[in-house]
Amino acid sequence: MTVQIIKGHIVDAPAFGKLAITENGFLILENGRIEGVFAELPETYRNAPVTDYADKLILPSFADLHMHAPQYAMLGTGMDLPLLDWLNTYTFKTEAAFKDTAYAREVYRALAKEMIDNGTTRVCAFSSLHRESTMILMEEFEKAGMTGYVGKVNMDRNSGDVLTETTEESMRETTAWLDEASDQFEHIKPVLTPRFTPTCSNELMAFLGKLAEERNLPVQSHLSENTSEIAWVRELHPDCAQYWESYKKYGLFNERTVMAHCVHSDERERTAMRENGVWVAHCPDSNINLVSGVAPVRKMVNEGVRVTLGSDIAGGALLAMPQVVTSAIRASKMKRIQTDWTDDFLTVAEAFYLGTTAGAKFFGTNGGFAKGDTLHAIVVDDSAFPTSAQKLSVTERFERAIYLMTKRDIAAVYSDGRKVK
Amino acid sequence: MTVQIIKGHIVDAPAFGKLAITENGFLILENGRIEGVFAELPETYRNAPVTDYADKLILPSFADLHMHAPQYAMLGTGMDLPLLDWLNTYTFKTEAAFKDTAYAREVYRALAKEMIDNGTTRVCAFSSLHRESTMILMEEFEKAGMTGYVGKVNMDRNSGDVLTETTEESMRETTAWLDEASDQFEHIKPVLTPRFTPTCSNELMAFLGKLAEERNLPVQSHLSENTSEIAWVRELHPDCAQYWESYKKYGLFNERTVMAHCVHSDERERTAMRENGVWVAHCPDSNINLVSGVAPVRKMVNEGVRVTLGSDIAGGALLAMPQVVTSAIRASKMKRIQTDWTDDFLTVAEAFYLGTTAGAKFFGTNGGFAKGDTLHAIVVDDSAFPTSAQKLSVTERFERAIYLMTKRDIAAVYSDGRKVK
Repeated sequence: MTVQIIKGHIVDAPAFGKLAITENGFLILENGRIEGVFAELPETYRNAPVTDYADKLILPSFADLHMHAPQYAMLGTGMDLPLLDWLNTYTFKTEAAFKDTAYAREVYRALAKEMIDNGTTRVCAFSSLHRESTMILMEEFEKAGMTGYVGKVNMDRNSGDVLTETTEESMRETTAWLDEASDQFEHIKPVLTPRFTPTCSNELMAFLGKLAEERNLPVQSHLSENTSEIAWVRELHPDCAQYWESYKKYGLFNERTVMAHCVHSDERERTAMRENGVWVAHCPDSNINLVSGVAPVRKMVNEGVRVTLGSDIAGGALLAMPQVVTSAIRASKMKRIQTDWTDDFLTVAEAFYLGTTAGAKFFGTNGGFAKGDTLHAIVVDDSAFPTSAQKLSVTERFERAIYLMTKRDIAAVYSDGRKVK
Repeated sequence: MTVQIIKGHIVDAPAFGKLAITENGFLILENGRIEGVFAELPETYRNAPVTDYADKLILPSFADLHMHAPQYAMLGTGMDLPLLDWLNTYTFKTEAAFKDTAYAREVYRALAKEMIDNGTTRVCAFSSLHRESTMILMEEFEKAGMTGYVGKVNMDRNSGDVLTETTEESMRETTAWLDEASDQFEHIKPVLTPRFTPTCSNELMAFLGKLAEERNLPVQSHLSENTSEIAWVRELHPDCAQYWESYKKYGLFNERTVMAHCVHSDERERTAMRENGVWVAHCPDSNINLVSGVAPVRKMVNEGVRVTLGSDIAGGALLAMPQVVTSAIRASKMKRIQTDWTDDFLTVAEAFYLGTTAGAKFFGTNGGFAKGDTLHAIVVDDSAFPTSAQKLSVTERFERAIYLMTKRDIAAVYSDGRKVK
């Protein structure tokens, strides 16, 4: 049996709004799996080697449940444009460039490093529609130490001139990609990725739903991001009372589905998400940048909908998940203002849970530092932060770190038990 | 005559929403003052030495028109607390610690360096109520290369136990500080700083108004940040129909006054600001973090009120002004959502103007790279940003830089003609 021990101030997020703090605690792994967090080192382990992070903070690492990997190339550009102009001026052209595998290699290698450096170890990512570049993204994520899912995008209609595929191509390439990708990487697996209802024909949706069932695959897409998109889906699917039903009818709306945004999901749609076990990827920065609206996150959580966080680069301009966590807090405070100080905002502990444990659960783990999971953690060195007037508690240091940390302050990153930074 | 020439892609912000772009341009200074920006090097200057920043961007530096310097020590802490608890748990205790001049020296030195590193060269700052530490703040700002104003805070009532002064102390210390500080530093001058109406007795306000007139001093304070504060002022000054009148009646509301926040300023209050030439320091991140509301910035600008930006640390958790600029954009997009997509949001060019030229004008300059001004500029190296799919224009690179730049990407900083980074 291999034992690993990591020592420091351990801050876990076992449940929404709950923090479990162990000052100068010991995080013990047996054969790569978490045995537990202990305030005192149990006698059994007294001869095992200890990695001592001293006064640093040890936190669960982040999970980014929605992002468009090729759009990393256009991070922070075109943010003054409305959604459709933004898509046509930048997004589709940028994604089209990923036909070039050398370019894909360069961008995806930089992206993977940046994510690990910023403490993201789990991801559910859109690639572009290109099969080869999708494989490159999976490979670069794997090499950098990431875990999670990557999806070749499907889009056979309403996709503009530069970035589209025929229904037949989309089906053929998806099958070929799945055959190649399913067992190729240890930590990165495929996820079916219909871009969103308007860009996928009924035939393609039916095909993907069938694939999901036959191969037992997860699914990711977009839902109710903005009002004109919702109206468009209503025109395309007059048989569906609501947007979500355009996924449901093809078997693409279940407990292995991540739906990004859900900004305008009303009570009926939220109920459908809860009853179908769908995961919401809340993307606060993207929703503000594209002036989509503010998702009713507090309501979703209260109602029992599974909410996680996504950077949604490059609608979101923030790749670093600590910034996405504070963006979720800020958006929730905006929601409180918007509802005339009625809806509660998200506390730091609550938003941190959404960005870590909540997202981790999608990947079939218990999340945080739960017994039996492999270690996904970051080590935060907050010594470069301003000198406080009073000595801060570990809880206060944790809260401050969420607001202030940059990759410079993340001293170490563990992913699936491996030290990857 | 001394001539300095700086070469690069020059992006100026001469007016609200306007960018003046000169690719591979020459910024020429004569005896430290800007002569102009030229696309070709005029014959007259062909023998003068050129500092060539090659492919980098040269932009006006930032002006932070509202911030609490001692609160840098508590940046990012206590953000879950409502305003009054936040003040009592952290803020007043933190400021009280600045009685200790050695601690003040440590924090203010770090703050000044961090501001210059992030491209802020002009500031209008609150110190604490302590005279000696206020002098230290001025000295550290001066040494680091900052320019602008610092104010010893006045607060003789409703200020809690740990941080207060009697009316007599406040008047005596303010006079002593002004005698000492007025000619002590070349670039940092005093500004009168009644904390806000609730913490200043009528006697103190009258004294400060008289001082402002006699010594021709600028004034900074807070206005209409949140609704309970506004109600409190109404109780304290039943003779005033609106909050701003509690400043006006003492001569503290004129064209040399900066009022922070103005979140809940209605048309009548906005008209009073415009007619009195008052400067608004819009502090978007603070207003969101403390759930104060979203200021009607677009309305103010349209009506001709002078709007500038402030970090308002530590109600704001962002000291770096590029982040305050994007925070203003995001807040304006929230305002657009809140007004059912009626109010326009701030474009990058508009928000950049507020964070640079608009603030610079408060200090009596024309702002940007106007002829006759001394140089306040940053040089941005965007080579570490993701590799774009298409070649970006200088305008696109500028917009991306506003969203993505950190101090790492700011290669050089000029303040009042001196290279300070």
